[in-house]
Amino acid sequence: MVAILVALGLSGAPTLSQQPVAADAAVHSTIGSAGFKAAAEALDRDFERHVAETIRLTEIPSPPFGEAERGKVYLELLRQHGLTDVEMDAVGNVMGLRRGTLSTGSGPSGTRPLIAIAAHLDTVFPVGTNVKVRREGTKLHAPGIGDDSRSLAVLLAIIRAMDAAKIQTKADILFVGDVGEEGLGDLRGMKQLFNTGKYKGRITAFISADGTDPGNRIVTGAVGSKRYRVTFKGPGGYSYSDFGIVSPAFALANAMKKFGALNVPASPKTTFSVGVVGGGTSVNSIPFESWMDVDMRSESRAELDKIDALFKTLVAAAVVEENAARSTAKGNITVDVKLTGDRPSGQTDASQSIVQIAAASVRAFGLTPAFTFSSNDSNIPISLGIPAITLDAGGASDRNHALDEWIDVEKTSSLRGMQMMLATLLTLAGMQ
Amino acid sequence: MVAILVALGLSGAPTLSQQPVAADAAVHSTIGSAGFKAAAEALDRDFERHVAETIRLTEIPSPPFGEAERGKVYLELLRQHGLTDVEMDAVGNVMGLRRGTLSTGSGPSGTRPLIAIAAHLDTVFPVGTNVKVRREGTKLHAPGIGDDSRSLAVLLAIIRAMDAAKIQTKADILFVGDVGEEGLGDLRGMKQLFNTGKYKGRITAFISADGTDPGNRIVTGAVGSKRYRVTFKGPGGYSYSDFGIVSPAFALANAMKKFGALNVPASPKTTFSVGVVGGGTSVNSIPFESWMDVDMRSESRAELDKIDALFKTLVAAAVVEENAARSTAKGNITVDVKLTGDRPSGQTDASQSIVQIAAASVRAFGLTPAFTFSSNDSNIPISLGIPAITLDAGGASDRNHALDEWIDVEKTSSLRGMQMMLATLLTLAGMQ
Repeated sequence: MVAILVALGLSGAPTLSQQPVAADAAVHSTIGSAGFKAAAEALDRDFERHVAETIRLTEIPSPPFGEAERGKVYLELLRQHGLTDVEMDAVGNVMGLRRGTLSTGSGPSGTRPLIAIAAHLDTVFPVGTNVKVRREGTKLHAPGIGDDSRSLAVLLAIIRAMDAAKIQTKADILFVGDVGEEGLGDLRGMKQLFNTGKYKGRITAFISADGTDPGNRIVTGAVGSKRYRVTFKGPGGYSYSDFGIVSPAFALANAMKKFGALNVPASPKTTFSVGVVGGGTSVNSIPFESWMDVDMRSESRAELDKIDALFKTLVAAAVVEENAARSTAKGNITVDVKLTGDRPSGQTDASQSIVQIAAASVRAFGLTPAFTFSSNDSNIPISLGIPAITLDAGGASDRNHALDEWIDVEKTSSLRGMQMMLATLLTLAGMQ
Repeated sequence: MVAILVALGLSGAPTLSQQPVAADAAVHSTIGSAGFKAAAEALDRDFERHVAETIRLTEIPSPPFGEAERGKVYLELLRQHGLTDVEMDAVGNVMGLRRGTLSTGSGPSGTRPLIAIAAHLDTVFPVGTNVKVRREGTKLHAPGIGDDSRSLAVLLAIIRAMDAAKIQTKADILFVGDVGEEGLGDLRGMKQLFNTGKYKGRITAFISADGTDPGNRIVTGAVGSKRYRVTFKGPGGYSYSDFGIVSPAFALANAMKKFGALNVPASPKTTFSVGVVGGGTSVNSIPFESWMDVDMRSESRAELDKIDALFKTLVAAAVVEENAARSTAKGNITVDVKLTGDRPSGQTDASQSIVQIAAASVRAFGLTPAFTFSSNDSNIPISLGIPAITLDAGGASDRNHALDEWIDVEKTSSLRGMQMMLATLLTLAGMQ
């Protein structure tokens, strides 16, 4: 455990060390401990309760910006699981602390390690979506069940297993059910947690428990994104009698055409898309406004900034060109570019303890680590230089974000994923 | 009156003669008659009832494809006004006959002149629009009041005036409140009346009473239109992980851009517009479909056919180009082009009796006739070669198709318009 304690910066430095650690040895030490074995047995014994809790949480609707109902239930569960400092914060995140042995020391709290592990409360599904779970053998079908309802239940199962095994960690662990991970939620839960709330500046490492699947996927890269609602506006009028005046629809088309023709690098992966278009009142009216929802992403902050700048230039050019192409006698085309999403890019370096330990945990359970990029809760800590990764919790799933989403709670694969996550968490936090 | 009888083809020919008539003399003869004078006095006496009826009809909501409530009330009013053969037809037009003296003859009905005069029941305003009339002096504010609720009341006032003056006409007159004049209604009321219903082949001249204004506007040209809902479809997917696949949004943009760059003649006036765009599920998804509502119009059938062909070519090219520009590994872009509106172009020749008489009526009341093109109920008879015009009924109005639509029922101007319309109708039908 010494190597890990050094990695955690417990010899003075408040954050994780940058130097590689003997991660495999440390993870094997964790897994070989009596405490871990007892915890693994508890996870096994407790498995049906975990499945039942997954179903219960999935069946509480939690649409974007409507996570409160599920949040209140999860808050009560965190309390029942014996955490301290259980609370719902200003934006609706719910969380509680499992105190480590170091927290009884006398140093200022800011110098103590604090590991946060979070699953997100929100789904992509709107109010009114049927979230009733349909079970077929070990397959559970319901919108949001894999992304990310099961992970909420995984966190609870981990707390119970640690308690059953009487495991004490050195570092404090903050268990979080957070809001606003999906789409226009724009990571507002994480922004609150890391930029504003009472744990601001105190979290030394972060694990996002997000998604299911074999458990060997370690997300270390934060795909940054910029999202805009771009609305072209004009005087509008009758399609026939006002023919010849500028049209927001044609300005929109021009901007979209230029946007679609942009060249972006394959690596670092950089993408762009027009997701939704709208505007206009009737087939025989020149619209007053026409709009599009735009999404740009990149693994690289520099590339994201580059395409963002190109995008703004081409939108401005589309306005100028439409005002030149048709009559402005009744008014000009203008544009409103509203930022609707802003997720920073970044990467937790492969040399970081958190990455090394997660990879060692995957290897310890016979799988090969796969390092990937994604856009999720870890984006925020990564952008702040806080070591952060996103992990699956085993099992299998498909059709995330679709109404026919499902997970497989086949026991062996599911338990393996949960044990890998526990091994990473305990090695990182240090077992007493 | 002799010239008019010839014009009406009462000497054998079933339709109006092509030869110019001494229209001014005929209209002066009408206006100078004791019957017309009595009718004009009745219109004056009856004016407040006309205003009240305008308000009553306006306040019965009559959205596109929802004209039944207003239609039933109008049907009952036509019955109360003593018309015969009062009925609602298969699509919801309501109508009744005021029989002329020639209809008692023994010839086959197809050889008798039959003048149809129609106002449309429908408005552009959707279900739920507040249609309560707000009065400020002589100005009446309400959606649909000028287009075309007042004209419905004008037809009733004309029937009452003719009855009060004991006027008998030679030709039968069919009074019609019709459906589907606006937008996607696509003139289905007129198509039923002229192509399918029991008066098919029997109407020898047609007047559309549509809109208010000084009354000197005589619409003789039918602006033809073609309307389409064009939907580009593709595999869809995630904006990030599926980046590089074909996108319906970019295919749409390309088609719109090409469409906006088309050159059309200023004369015969030809126009094009994209009215509404839509499609897509979320900002971070590549859409499964993106669509536009397109409107093309021309005074000339040949020009309309030309732009229609160009449009279909550019839509097809946009599909091909998108499938070449991005990956089709997950599926191709396809397109569905659905015809949503098809109104024929055409023109009632200025030498036709109906045009000559209407112009003479305008001159007789001290105004200068203005001949224009429009797209309205007259399009259908014009396309069938049946002499047809569209007339205003005096007064003033503005903001048609907008929520702040209003009319001015200032008595002098309003009565003048109604008298001009009556003079045209009586001269055309022939007074006994």
